[in-house]
Amino acid sequence: MATLGLIEYEDASPEVRAVYDDIMTTRKTDWINNFWKALANDPATLKRTWEDIKQIMAPGSLDALTKELIYVAVSVSNQCGYCIASHTAGARKKGMTDDMFRELMAVVGMANETNRLSAGYQIEIDEQFKS
Amino acid sequence: MATLGLIEYEDASPEVRAVYDDIMTTRKTDWINNFWKALANDPATLKRTWEDIKQIMAPGSLDALTKELIYVAVSVSNQCGYCIASHTAGARKKGMTDDMFRELMAVVGMANETNRLSAGYQIEIDEQFKS
Amino acid sequence: MATLGLIEYEDASPEVRAVYDDIMTTRKTDWINNFWKALANDPATLKRTWEDIKQIMAPGSLDALTKELIYVAVSVSNQCGYCIASHTAGARKKGMTDDMFRELMAVVGMANETNRLSAGYQIEIDEQFKS
Amino acid sequence: MATLGLIEYEDASPEVRAVYDDIMTTRKTDWINNFWKALANDPATLKRTWEDIKQIMAPGSLDALTKELIYVAVSVSNQCGYCIASHTAGARKKGMTDDMFRELMAVVGMANETNRLSAGYQIEIDEQFKS
Amino acid sequence: MATLGLIEYEDASPEVRAVYDDIMTTRKTDWINNFWKALANDPATLKRTWEDIKQIMAPGSLDALTKELIYVAVSVSNQCGYCIASHTAGARKKGMTDDMFRELMAVVGMANETNRLSAGYQIEIDEQFKS
Amino acid sequence: MATLGLIEYEDASPEVRAVYDDIMTTRKTDWINNFWKALANDPATLKRTWEDIKQIMAPGSLDALTKELIYVAVSVSNQCGYCIASHTAGARKKGMTDDMFRELMAVVGMANETNRLSAGYQIEIDEQFKS
Repeated sequence: MATLGLIEYEDASPEVRAVYDDIMTTRKTDWINNFWKALANDPATLKRTWEDIKQIMAPGSLDALTKELIYVAVSVSNQCGYCIASHTAGARKKGMTDDMFRELMAVVGMANETNRLSAGYQIEIDEQFKS
Repeated sequence: MATLGLIEYEDASPEVRAVYDDIMTTRKTDWINNFWKALANDPATLKRTWEDIKQIMAPGSLDALTKELIYVAVSVSNQCGYCIASHTAGARKKGMTDDMFRELMAVVGMANETNRLSAGYQIEIDEQFKS
Repeated sequence: MATLGLIEYEDASPEVRAVYDDIMTTRKTDWINNFWKALANDPATLKRTWEDIKQIMAPGSLDALTKELIYVAVSVSNQCGYCIASHTAGARKKGMTDDMFRELMAVVGMANETNRLSAGYQIEIDEQFKS
Repeated sequence: MATLGLIEYEDASPEVRAVYDDIMTTRKTDWINNFWKALANDPATLKRTWEDIKQIMAPGSLDALTKELIYVAVSVSNQCGYCIASHTAGARKKGMTDDMFRELMAVVGMANETNRLSAGYQIEIDEQFKS
Repeated sequence: MATLGLIEYEDASPEVRAVYDDIMTTRKTDWINNFWKALANDPATLKRTWEDIKQIMAPGSLDALTKELIYVAVSVSNQCGYCIASHTAGARKKGMTDDMFRELMAVVGMANETNRLSAGYQIEIDEQFKS
Repeated sequence: MATLGLIEYEDASPEVRAVYDDIMTTRKTDWINNFWKALANDPATLKRTWEDIKQIMAPGSLDALTKELIYVAVSVSNQCGYCIASHTAGARKKGMTDDMFRELMAVVGMANETNRLSAGYQIEIDEQFKS
């Protein structure tokens, strides 16, 4: 189980509840996933992390779905089981189709392969890429 | 320098030249970057890798720019210097603006942070994410 | 289950038992955790690893708790589930409070974030840091 | 060179200068390292990252040096060249002696070794560690 | 469970069945493991991945067992649970003895340790290694 | 440059010289590479690391070349520039041909790709692999 346990809404302090409320409102959902319930053991980190994610994941030059796909890509590269599960679900909610998921996985796999080929062959950066 | 050296076009076998030609045609460019010149030491891997990338990076459910952004995201997570340089250049060519780059970096940084918070707090996957 | 199974004390060779005994004496505990029971399938590695850890984790310029916190930090970065569980428990035993754990996680998360921002922005090392 | 270039103080906007000033004041130094000059291309990320780091790295249950040692440990595990250089310098400034550095490296090396032994032997988490 | 479910032989398209058949024939086995059943949700990736693996893992200058040991080594470094389980089984089938496994783990652990010592001490590449 | 500088033979203590001598004798060479010269700043770690490597890399059930190939594979996965350079040279000295290097890279690249496909598709371990 989570190291410090999970803080349920009914047991949460007003400070934590305020974050939970904002998460549910922002995400248009009525539940809180375990990531936040675990972070709630550290209200300062909970608040900071949520506010950072809220700012970063909001649509900008990149739309919300693209950002979520990037999040999944990183989580898969890092072999983070929880993050893969939660952000794959998050991406679906934002419109990721099965086809998009398939293509995402293919790109992530390929990038991980060529990252190692580049390193193993000790390839120097082309002048054209330095600028 | 690259482990087995770099194979320039004029020194390349017809088999390798055919791949180089296809790379330049597909990418609408007149030069070959070091990655391919290094892989050319292994023509089978050169051909296989190029064909895989050509198939995988072609626009599908995800457009070419989104795929390139994902490639950069993985390369940054993996700390692959060559790949970051080459795919950042590739993404720019496909339309990545400075603002998109800034947002991409912010998402990649954030994902790497929460990947570790999830692991460190030993958070279990919510039932809602299992399906 | 563990690849080669777990070697219990009663089934262990005298050589393995000697290591088990030293672990329990050094750690002031009366049980052996699975890591050592698995390594016991390779008595040379068991002995070498234990002696290395015993030397490295002993208080020196850094105290035992600080070393254990560093161990947790690395294990979290590497997404090693077993190591996170065992070294978090080990750190608690050496005096890690809940507040220390919270701060540890915050630092580990932050470091993983800025590690990628540094790589992604392709930042060169300042002259002031070279010395 | 850095992807978007480095923003020097004299070229910085008032918003960026305010962060630079706070960094120099907080760190009791008269220069800004490249990390911040690169992030300054994205003022929102610059401000957020600095404020997060300022909060997280401030002494709490863990002192400032311990936190910096953890930062180095993570950066070394992740093979982030810039971060290793900058945070090793930072740790020295906060009091890391050569002996502490030596012990830090030994622990980081050891942790990375046993992280893989744990994974490779497919070791299950002991019941005693689940709580 | 697997994100897109597992495609069993009886539910597979002729295209997927052809790959399954080739896997079973090539590996001299009568079952398909979950990796392929999951990839079968993306027939193009299934076919490409299988053909790549078939080509790459075939005996050449390196024999099939050595290649499988390398596969395990990478999977352990990456903390990929599924891959460790499947490729450890694959290596056994190709002749990996318990002693080989023990030595493999020791090398992988050691390499992960010295990889970090090299990075942490910021060691420059010897001229003798550049060629 | 290396964090604590490099210790040359003529400046080394008798304890460090003894290790240097053993390295040169064991490896049938007349020079010491930077890795050891950097570790020499911590004689205890130098001695321990060398003795561990000497034991682990000695031919056993796996021959010396196979072990070196595994070392390269791990170093490439981890993007450790120094280690890739030094162990690629080491592998050549032990008999790695260009063809072996090419095949090694292909396997390492492939393993890194399928490690992520396995994680991303959230594939469960087959019962047949648990034993």
